[in-house]
Amino acid sequence: MNEPRTIVAGAQTNPRLFEVEANVSKCLGNLEEAAVHGAQLVVFPECATTGYCFDSRAEAMSVAEPVPGPSVERFLTACRRLHVYTIVGMPERAGEKLYNSAVFLGPEGIVACYRKVHLPKLGLDRFADHGPGPLQVYRSPVGAVGLYICYDSAFPEAARVMALEGAEVLVHPTNWPVGVEGTPRHIVYARAIENVVFHVSVNRVGDERGYHFIGQSKIISPDGEELAAAGPDREEIIYASLALAEARSKGRMSSPGHESNRFRDRRPEFYGAITQQPPQARPS
Amino acid sequence: MNEPRTIVAGAQTNPRLFEVEANVSKCLGNLEEAAVHGAQLVVFPECATTGYCFDSRAEAMSVAEPVPGPSVERFLTACRRLHVYTIVGMPERAGEKLYNSAVFLGPEGIVACYRKVHLPKLGLDRFADHGPGPLQVYRSPVGAVGLYICYDSAFPEAARVMALEGAEVLVHPTNWPVGVEGTPRHIVYARAIENVVFHVSVNRVGDERGYHFIGQSKIISPDGEELAAAGPDREEIIYASLALAEARSKGRMSSPGHESNRFRDRRPEFYGAITQQPPQARPS
Repeated sequence: MNEPRTIVAGAQTNPRLFEVEANVSKCLGNLEEAAVHGAQLVVFPECATTGYCFDSRAEAMSVAEPVPGPSVERFLTACRRLHVYTIVGMPERAGEKLYNSAVFLGPEGIVACYRKVHLPKLGLDRFADHGPGPLQVYRSPVGAVGLYICYDSAFPEAARVMALEGAEVLVHPTNWPVGVEGTPRHIVYARAIENVVFHVSVNRVGDERGYHFIGQSKIISPDGEELAAAGPDREEIIYASLALAEARSKGRMSSPGHESNRFRDRRPEFYGAITQQPPQARPS
Repeated sequence: MNEPRTIVAGAQTNPRLFEVEANVSKCLGNLEEAAVHGAQLVVFPECATTGYCFDSRAEAMSVAEPVPGPSVERFLTACRRLHVYTIVGMPERAGEKLYNSAVFLGPEGIVACYRKVHLPKLGLDRFADHGPGPLQVYRSPVGAVGLYICYDSAFPEAARVMALEGAEVLVHPTNWPVGVEGTPRHIVYARAIENVVFHVSVNRVGDERGYHFIGQSKIISPDGEELAAAGPDREEIIYASLALAEARSKGRMSSPGHESNRFRDRRPEFYGAITQQPPQARPS
């Protein structure tokens, strides 16, 4: 039986701060290379068009773009020519607002623009506005895609919400610096296993204003198998072929004749506290 | 500054199916050994008193005990004599009900009896009744302890609820068989990191009715550091000294002068779907 598959590529790049034209040109080169190698969806890091370590909101605003806008148009032109989809992290300017966004683009145009909802006190995110949400799933010819960015994955709720809404693959542009090694080592596997979904994290490499980024882009299967992984320090493209149906059934045989199911076996009646902020975390 | 610490031991054992008297005697030997080595809390596996791979409810009921009951009394006597706390997995009979429980015992008596709420289709759990919940935190002289068992950890909500209610350490008696290697390899680290809590998983070893158990008991710090780990195939006791205060602040410096906080940075307004069962998982 030929199950439908999506060939995904992750382009681990080293964006140069402020150099939008050069960064986008390099991404378009990667997009073409990956498409030539059969990729149907090509994922780039967070802030792939601009770099990340801005020191002020004004700096970030100076390279943020509207969606649609000039860089999005360049990617869309390439998507149409190459018959490929792409997900690209980029700072977005929307009137007075500044978002840390990821655009999902394809031959037919803009599929989605996701604005990061969980913001760490780091780089661009110190100056960005909170995304208005919700965390949601985008049905597309390359699968049911849940989209989130970097620090979003630290919160198990984010991946969970998208998996419960039917995501087959979670796509996760990121900028992991030194200090978050536990994320590529453990968290991305946990998000795949606990939700029985494919998980695609694409990080950057290189240094920027004293921050070193650790690469290790990874594509994980719904059973926690590492399908592809990049190294810690160089630009490269990784590939995996995703049998999306593996993410649609949440059941696995736990003993002969008996199936446990990661969704059906949930007990939501006990999870109410998750929709509250605990007293010690509320602003004082 | 001398921070309060709790010295925890995990006793990775090989229970013999049905042999309650011998299993409890062996546990009491481990309890004494660990107490002599300074442990203040000694954790045993799921179903440590009986084994796990029952083939019928009647089989399980034949060795399940009330709480309090004869085996609990033996442990309590030892806790009083040794001035130590213990958490022990055991099948519990409560009238007509059968639970997969973990009892939390100390010198002053029974601290808690937790009844497993997430049941896989495996071993005892095929015949057990669902625990009535809630998932909760037990304040004790050895810390604020969240208690859950084996398959409960597959659901990120379970650990999350207890962390949000103030757990400093999640204690997790388990019976991991072949096939769930991703749990000791990734899930237990993720539960610690994402909730900024200590995580103590104590598994069994050995074989039972065709099932092989994989050991690898682990104690993880709130930053995902492995504080202690047991091997895959032999009985042993592991130890770690937990500085519980590390689990009380959820903040970590993400850039100089800027603190990200795994609790404060949550966005609960987007997590509502977690309290629902998705349509495809509802019984048809």
